[in-house]
Amino acid sequence: MTTVALQPLRIDEAVRSTDDVVNILDKGFLALDGAFASDLAVSNGARVSFNLASQEMTARDEGLIRFLMRDHHGSPFEHGYFRFIVKAPLFVVREHHRHRAGHSYNEWSGRYSKMKAEFYIPSNVRTQVGKPGAYTFEPVDEATREAARGEIERQSLEAFAAYERMLELGVAKEVARTVLPLNMYTTYYWSCNPRSLMHFCSLRNSEFAQYEIRELARAAERFLERLMPVTHAAFVQNGRTAP
Amino acid sequence: MTTVALQPLRIDEAVRSTDDVVNILDKGFLALDGAFASDLAVSNGARVSFNLASQEMTARDEGLIRFLMRDHHGSPFEHGYFRFIVKAPLFVVREHHRHRAGHSYNEWSGRYSKMKAEFYIPSNVRTQVGKPGAYTFEPVDEATREAARGEIERQSLEAFAAYERMLELGVAKEVARTVLPLNMYTTYYWSCNPRSLMHFCSLRNSEFAQYEIRELARAAERFLERLMPVTHAAFVQNGRTAP
Amino acid sequence: MTTVALQPLRIDEAVRSTDDVVNILDKGFLALDGAFASDLAVSNGARVSFNLASQEMTARDEGLIRFLMRDHHGSPFEHGYFRFIVKAPLFVVREHHRHRAGHSYNEWSGRYSKMKAEFYIPSNVRTQVGKPGAYTFEPVDEATREAARGEIERQSLEAFAAYERMLELGVAKEVARTVLPLNMYTTYYWSCNPRSLMHFCSLRNSEFAQYEIRELARAAERFLERLMPVTHAAFVQNGRTAP
Amino acid sequence: MTTVALQPLRIDEAVRSTDDVVNILDKGFLALDGAFASDLAVSNGARVSFNLASQEMTARDEGLIRFLMRDHHGSPFEHGYFRFIVKAPLFVVREHHRHRAGHSYNEWSGRYSKMKAEFYIPSNVRTQVGKPGAYTFEPVDEATREAARGEIERQSLEAFAAYERMLELGVAKEVARTVLPLNMYTTYYWSCNPRSLMHFCSLRNSEFAQYEIRELARAAERFLERLMPVTHAAFVQNGRTAP
Repeated sequence: MTTVALQPLRIDEAVRSTDDVVNILDKGFLALDGAFASDLAVSNGARVSFNLASQEMTARDEGLIRFLMRDHHGSPFEHGYFRFIVKAPLFVVREHHRHRAGHSYNEWSGRYSKMKAEFYIPSNVRTQVGKPGAYTFEPVDEATREAARGEIERQSLEAFAAYERMLELGVAKEVARTVLPLNMYTTYYWSCNPRSLMHFCSLRNSEFAQYEIRELARAAERFLERLMPVTHAAFVQNGRTAP
Repeated sequence: MTTVALQPLRIDEAVRSTDDVVNILDKGFLALDGAFASDLAVSNGARVSFNLASQEMTARDEGLIRFLMRDHHGSPFEHGYFRFIVKAPLFVVREHHRHRAGHSYNEWSGRYSKMKAEFYIPSNVRTQVGKPGAYTFEPVDEATREAARGEIERQSLEAFAAYERMLELGVAKEVARTVLPLNMYTTYYWSCNPRSLMHFCSLRNSEFAQYEIRELARAAERFLERLMPVTHAAFVQNGRTAP
Repeated sequence: MTTVALQPLRIDEAVRSTDDVVNILDKGFLALDGAFASDLAVSNGARVSFNLASQEMTARDEGLIRFLMRDHHGSPFEHGYFRFIVKAPLFVVREHHRHRAGHSYNEWSGRYSKMKAEFYIPSNVRTQVGKPGAYTFEPVDEATREAARGEIERQSLEAFAAYERMLELGVAKEVARTVLPLNMYTTYYWSCNPRSLMHFCSLRNSEFAQYEIRELARAAERFLERLMPVTHAAFVQNGRTAP
Repeated sequence: MTTVALQPLRIDEAVRSTDDVVNILDKGFLALDGAFASDLAVSNGARVSFNLASQEMTARDEGLIRFLMRDHHGSPFEHGYFRFIVKAPLFVVREHHRHRAGHSYNEWSGRYSKMKAEFYIPSNVRTQVGKPGAYTFEPVDEATREAARGEIERQSLEAFAAYERMLELGVAKEVARTVLPLNMYTTYYWSCNPRSLMHFCSLRNSEFAQYEIRELARAAERFLERLMPVTHAAFVQNGRTAP
């Protein structure tokens, strides 16, 4: 009998086999790669103050979680774990990776492998109304929308063609990639804890955040809601302010 | 039919029901409360650089982990999670809680509940030989050992008696506790990731660390070894230097 | 001519030569050892969003800082630095050192040198009224106060005597120190940035914090007020919630 | 008499008035905006272990710093501060901003203001030789170099033209910017401490780092050397491994 080792898969293929995928942003996704997270761990992170541990969630534990959220007792929300695989355009990733405490990232590198010709072409093309600090956004008319999408698509393909021409000339990938645009997709692992996840969602699933990262944060928040429903409800009730 | 909610348990009782307890430091313990950790996640945290993901550990993945450890590529080791419950004397906890990045703690509070009269009485009573920066420790003779243990026990009980007398006078717990000694036990939740756990072990499961925190770190390292054997072997092979 | 190198000083002596000392908690202090902090750096940390930098504070910069504080834009408040020397009792330090992100500490070690017989004897002896989560504190009567202070002082001296007897027997400092009580003083360096300092003050210069750490936080906040008056005013106006 | 408030300046102009600018990467720079950093603070961060503080650097303090570096005692190196202004291409900034602990950033935002048509055109065009994990880079021949520079320049200008056409159509800046390439410049404030700065330099002023971020790290290391010469010498002597 021969044992054949499973070959590494492209991230896209690896993720497709999961149920826990939320498709976002044109060709992107957020996939839950694994989690160890519960409301009970939050409650017990607080009960340890009294040298106690709950064996299961009760109404009192739910009340305790609401109290912790409201009074900004953040540390009990750190005793859990979420690991995601993300596929998103670079301009979204640049914002995401600015989150530091309680977040870990490992990303596809354009130094080591050739990037793929996949680009985010926005459905939601909008215009900016108002002054800095108080912008609102409104959809553009259909003609402008198509013109913008055309510009973005054309520009993306031309950039990729220039990238490939340089690779054919023998230029190092790390040099050639510098012409690639911010709407190109990348993929990465993202680990966080319930507190840092809520902090991310409070800033990014917000009307002040750019639409695209808000889509990412909205998807992430769905997993918080599924795995930690009491915590999530308290978070929402508290105006989505992270504790 | 009546459903009776399970009552919160004392931490000691809650932990006793677990298999994953290592008894350390006289009356203390380190218990694994849960984990989501694997060598495969480390390998994939690196393979994502090439937009790939392994489906199972192979010899190549093992080699990759050894390479990451040796060349100090630390971030792929952050994609995992360990949660412990610890019971240890305060002087050990003071050292432990100095570890910041990638560590979360929630501890029993002497402000809110009465502490218990449990104190660490060392078996390993030693004397200090050599100069600062280069101490070694040697066991004391039996008479000195018994004298020291007697002093420590007597002093602990007297401190606790003074604590209780103040409580009886109506003095607030948070004031009365200030006479309690550093060998009193406390309990806490401790969450970390494989990288921060290795960083803790590299500094504390070390001949330069105090014996007591070394016992704690040694116990913690056993869980790393059990759940992430390839990572642990590479860590040891690399002189226990965290990546 | 002979040059005589200045000898290292005891921390207490070194600090006494500074103007920037706030005496707190009986025999303790908070001393500003140095700082590089300004309101202008906050404003510019925000103006860089527009690729601009202010050359001096104007009314518009003050308004900008108030806006940043109110809308929880925290990162511009990280571009500054405070370094303190602290002398405080261990039970206060235990709470202080739980603050992780943006805080650095280095502390006197009982492993390497003999501790001094200095103990915090509280003036403010109080009793606890109400239920967990909603305690209030009231002063005890004079007789109770004197009884408690007597207990604390006596217990401290007995603990120190036991410590010294063990040292005389040749027991290692790191073992002997374990009988010392939580009201003993230690000293340490503490570095932080304006944001992490405000986070500390928001949790500790609070009616929910223990009186003693509140005294420390109150002293620290005075230095924030002196060096960054606009930031401090916005912080207070915003209910002392850190951005 | 009329007082005219100084107007905010473009970052480029503001920086030009400083002596502390290192020009790097074509049109970029690293400017020291301020610092509070000394070897003495490192030494004292260690001496506090003995409750002592040095008043000036002596040969013993220098030896102490070398010992701390060699034996990985990292925390005394956190008691200092550097603030930089950086102008660099996006592909460099993406790598830089992955550094989390002990680093603070605030960056020019393409959401709020129009970007400038400034692009990094590499002098050092190279080819990649060898296998993943063990690449080396060699200069390309002159014809390839000119071809690559031409591609990069042409592609940059076309991308910017598409960006401007979309802005003229009324498309929001945050949407239009997504076609801009990774070699476009941005500017940002960067705060760090001596330890996190050394960690950055150990990973990025390294033969394994991409040439461009190495130039940034090399420039940053010059400021470490100027302000903390003993620390820097020990860092280099220790193989540029951060403590």
